[in-house]
Amino acid sequence: MQAEIITIGDEILIGQIVDTNSAFIGKILNSVGVSVYQITSIQDDRAHILKALAAAEANADIIIVTGGLGPTKDDITKHTICDYFNDHLVRNEAVTINIERLWRDYVKQPMQQVNLDQALMPSQSQVLMNTVGSAPGMWIEKNNKVFISLPGVPYEMKLLMENEVIPKLKNKYKRPSILHKTLITYGIGESMLAEKIEEWETNLPIFIKLAYLPNFGKVRLRLSAIGADLESITRAVDAEIQKVIPLIKTEYIGIEEEDGDLEVVIAKQLTKLGKTLALAESCTGGKIAELFTSHSGASAYFKGGVVTYATQSKIDILGVPEILITTHSVVSAEVAEVMAQKARVLYKSDFALSTTGNAGPAKGDSEAEVGTVFIALATENGVFSQKFELGSNRERVVNKSVNKALELLQKEIFKI
Amino acid sequence: MQAEIITIGDEILIGQIVDTNSAFIGKILNSVGVSVYQITSIQDDRAHILKALAAAEANADIIIVTGGLGPTKDDITKHTICDYFNDHLVRNEAVTINIERLWRDYVKQPMQQVNLDQALMPSQSQVLMNTVGSAPGMWIEKNNKVFISLPGVPYEMKLLMENEVIPKLKNKYKRPSILHKTLITYGIGESMLAEKIEEWETNLPIFIKLAYLPNFGKVRLRLSAIGADLESITRAVDAEIQKVIPLIKTEYIGIEEEDGDLEVVIAKQLTKLGKTLALAESCTGGKIAELFTSHSGASAYFKGGVVTYATQSKIDILGVPEILITTHSVVSAEVAEVMAQKARVLYKSDFALSTTGNAGPAKGDSEAEVGTVFIALATENGVFSQKFELGSNRERVVNKSVNKALELLQKEIFKI
Repeated sequence: MQAEIITIGDEILIGQIVDTNSAFIGKILNSVGVSVYQITSIQDDRAHILKALAAAEANADIIIVTGGLGPTKDDITKHTICDYFNDHLVRNEAVTINIERLWRDYVKQPMQQVNLDQALMPSQSQVLMNTVGSAPGMWIEKNNKVFISLPGVPYEMKLLMENEVIPKLKNKYKRPSILHKTLITYGIGESMLAEKIEEWETNLPIFIKLAYLPNFGKVRLRLSAIGADLESITRAVDAEIQKVIPLIKTEYIGIEEEDGDLEVVIAKQLTKLGKTLALAESCTGGKIAELFTSHSGASAYFKGGVVTYATQSKIDILGVPEILITTHSVVSAEVAEVMAQKARVLYKSDFALSTTGNAGPAKGDSEAEVGTVFIALATENGVFSQKFELGSNRERVVNKSVNKALELLQKEIFKI
Repeated sequence: MQAEIITIGDEILIGQIVDTNSAFIGKILNSVGVSVYQITSIQDDRAHILKALAAAEANADIIIVTGGLGPTKDDITKHTICDYFNDHLVRNEAVTINIERLWRDYVKQPMQQVNLDQALMPSQSQVLMNTVGSAPGMWIEKNNKVFISLPGVPYEMKLLMENEVIPKLKNKYKRPSILHKTLITYGIGESMLAEKIEEWETNLPIFIKLAYLPNFGKVRLRLSAIGADLESITRAVDAEIQKVIPLIKTEYIGIEEEDGDLEVVIAKQLTKLGKTLALAESCTGGKIAELFTSHSGASAYFKGGVVTYATQSKIDILGVPEILITTHSVVSAEVAEVMAQKARVLYKSDFALSTTGNAGPAKGDSEAEVGTVFIALATENGVFSQKFELGSNRERVVNKSVNKALELLQKEIFKI
């Protein structure tokens, strides 16, 4: 069972937006046993759309197209799909009613003919009703292949995938199970890691595939398996994980959660322990807070944080003694530790993380070298800090600092 | 001059990562007059890579491949490219020296044969030296087409694009100029907008293309032009912008900056005015702080912010009177306004923005409906707030809140 995703829109090709739709679709298809053969991003251009549809039809059983369904002149997907199937448009009554309802209840602006025309659908298509937007999805079957067209607005696309496409695919196809589990390792390069686990890797069962994913000092190891029965492939993958962990004992941090990342692992553990967290962020600028609060349920453990970007704010808000800053510099272990301690007291939390460093490109308030970062963790037993040299690229320094801070906290809370 | 981007890696197809490399490459190619015809994301699979290379060669003049250049067994790009050109691998002395240097100065772990083997290059290729990683880039010319292979690690790919690929492309090809300018509008649907500017759109010169980009209540209007001479297309696009602005006077917010978004416009204006900003974030959880600090130069205007996620922290950190919260609820205009005022005083800033709301899915600390958000702005002249109903999707509520907060601030600072 193979799918191909086609995302339509010049904004993707010129780099105006990052295509997040494909990742969402790829993940949810995998979760129901559908593999993605290819993702193709193409222009808002009739000939290009026709060509991509034909290529995808040759590659895949399920073709999912996003984008180009709006009411304006640059939206040509619907007409082009109609041409591809030698079809014609007919008005759909249910869609018309839905659009009228949206305009009455939400848009509250005069409706145009172009809005009503969004209810014109290829005669062969089944409607995937979009209850939150005026562009309906389409489902067209041809020679035992399915073509699905969805709006490009991520929110609308996601609802349609979850509520319409996935149930229909489940219903239509007998699918295998696909399982991915990812181990997070830290502090070793991918080639060293590969050497350590070479024999294990060589002896992996044929249906388990291994991938190395290096990024910012972490190497993630992904095991992917496909099989008829989820239980038996899960058993096999778990058995391999139990074999490999002892080989990478020092480097192994944990298993990546379904939804991603370290902050989810930490959130679960803090919630389980009934412990709380606060933050005092300087060089990470709120990014750690944003990570935690991007998941629901954060209020169970996350008390909040201060972003003390300017030096003066570290004094005014956190009460870092000025003398400490003049003596040790604002980028120092001493300042990081006091920031964490003060944040812990301020927020009455069990743990508090702090970051202070110079993300570059300019030296900013401190005399510290670009890339120097101190991270501290305050707990009920005291406070400790670590120094890092994270290079000269701003984005990289910030991302690595966030990772390091999360790792520091993770090691602490899993000791308890 | 057309390019095609091929990103290799199962992690993209299964949705484990979002492909940000393509957007970066698309944008930088556009900036030097190279259009991107298509982006294709494919599996770590020999047959698939060969097929994609052949398809891209038929479509484009420049083929840029990322990913699959690491030292481990799942990295097969180099060997496959070698096969595609019926070539063989030869050891490159300069790359060997670079790898040895990296291991000596940075990795500081024993070097393996697989690391040294990263210096094996197809004999027809020119090396694009990767000074920050062990996987070199490759440049291969064939039948007046250029094939470029780059590592998938974003940081390494970006450096190679900027320092090697772009200069070489500039040198090799005479390129046209491509210009994109994007107007931001707010408060009107795309079809209404289209009606308002219909006559203008119809009369656009043939070399200017218009796109509508709706998202979270904003519609962005992108004008794209291509031509031999940058100055004359800029003049033409600017002239069209001057014509369209009066037609959308109430809805027009500003022109999107090169690097994106509203926060950049705001950052520039605050820096120009010599004014400073602080934040008190609840439902946006640090996302506004993170936005501002993700760009360098933030210390010129950004004092910092507090993330007061828990109700108690609004009392403890900001000093919001408890009676205000019990009387009006934590999600209220009163609380938002006091949060902004307290943050302004705490950080000694000229402006302070606050957010308090219920992003869902659960009701959390407050009795407010999911989606209800109050945003306040404190200035030297006082404080004001606005209430928003932003629906039930958590991600959407947070994103819209961030947008609304930025818009509130933008309107204020451009009045000065």
